[in-house]
Amino acid sequence: MRLTLIAAQSLDGFITRHDTPGSNFASAEDRRFFREALRSFDCCVMGAVTYRTARDTIRASLMPDRLRVVITRSPEKYASDVISGKLEFACTPPAQLVADLRQRGCQYCAILGGSQIHSLFLEAGLIDELWLTIEPQLFGEGTPLLARRAAAKLTLLSSQNLAPNTLLLKYRVEK
Amino acid sequence: MRLTLIAAQSLDGFITRHDTPGSNFASAEDRRFFREALRSFDCCVMGAVTYRTARDTIRASLMPDRLRVVITRSPEKYASDVISGKLEFACTPPAQLVADLRQRGCQYCAILGGSQIHSLFLEAGLIDELWLTIEPQLFGEGTPLLARRAAAKLTLLSSQNLAPNTLLLKYRVEK
Repeated sequence: MRLTLIAAQSLDGFITRHDTPGSNFASAEDRRFFREALRSFDCCVMGAVTYRTARDTIRASLMPDRLRVVITRSPEKYASDVISGKLEFACTPPAQLVADLRQRGCQYCAILGGSQIHSLFLEAGLIDELWLTIEPQLFGEGTPLLARRAAAKLTLLSSQNLAPNTLLLKYRVEK
Repeated sequence: MRLTLIAAQSLDGFITRHDTPGSNFASAEDRRFFREALRSFDCCVMGAVTYRTARDTIRASLMPDRLRVVITRSPEKYASDVISGKLEFACTPPAQLVADLRQRGCQYCAILGGSQIHSLFLEAGLIDELWLTIEPQLFGEGTPLLARRAAAKLTLLSSQNLAPNTLLLKYRVEK
């Protein structure tokens, strides 16, 4: 299974603008790219904070054959949100979760944040590619792309403009 | 006078790799670009930490008609390092320093870090352009591009490869 981390950040590496949760700072072009990109993944994984921030949007856009898994220490709290095969909650460690998804026939998994989830999967050596939208802003403060120290080397696969001032950079994570 | 902030960072926005001072993580191609780019500036400004980290290199590459100003709270500590017109030390606030440099005939000023100096000049509304090298690495920790919260909007002027995996992004800072 291939895992791709997809995120939008300010030029200086923040996935939120200061203390404001979510990625509302991202351009319309990035949101369109993100919606379309997700169609090429048969599953995606996010943390509970990301889920709670975007809960209504996520629940309104569930699709058959596209499993969304929310990682949380307390899956039982979300029992009433579960829609089996579409929206599930788990406290499974990354490698075990990937093995489970593979066994269920998933081939392409998008890792959708936040920074704790990014670090968790990167540290486990499970991220194959990073698709990062660079918005033309400097925040100086906010949630960083990664929650903890890392030492990952990347190979640039492509660089394209999503909008005149917005870049989409795709990298392979070296293993 | 035009002020250009020039820096190299990891993809996730750090200008040092973890606790290691300086930009030794930057590629040979970035170092070459940086040396050549500096030739088109008649002055540059850096903080005392940046100066102390690169003191030998800086003192070995001084040139006539290229003034380097180190901003420090204690210029008197560096009295023996002063080479008038080439290497000077000042505790002047940004706007006053820019006025002084303009009066001395300087037209193009490079702002060379670190993060405190970046924030100081950005907050004063003095940065015209940002030339940022994006190295293909994730650090998760280190010195951030900016020392403090900011809310700067940018216009992308150009994007080019310095090396297969290293991008140079040039932005205009909107005022």
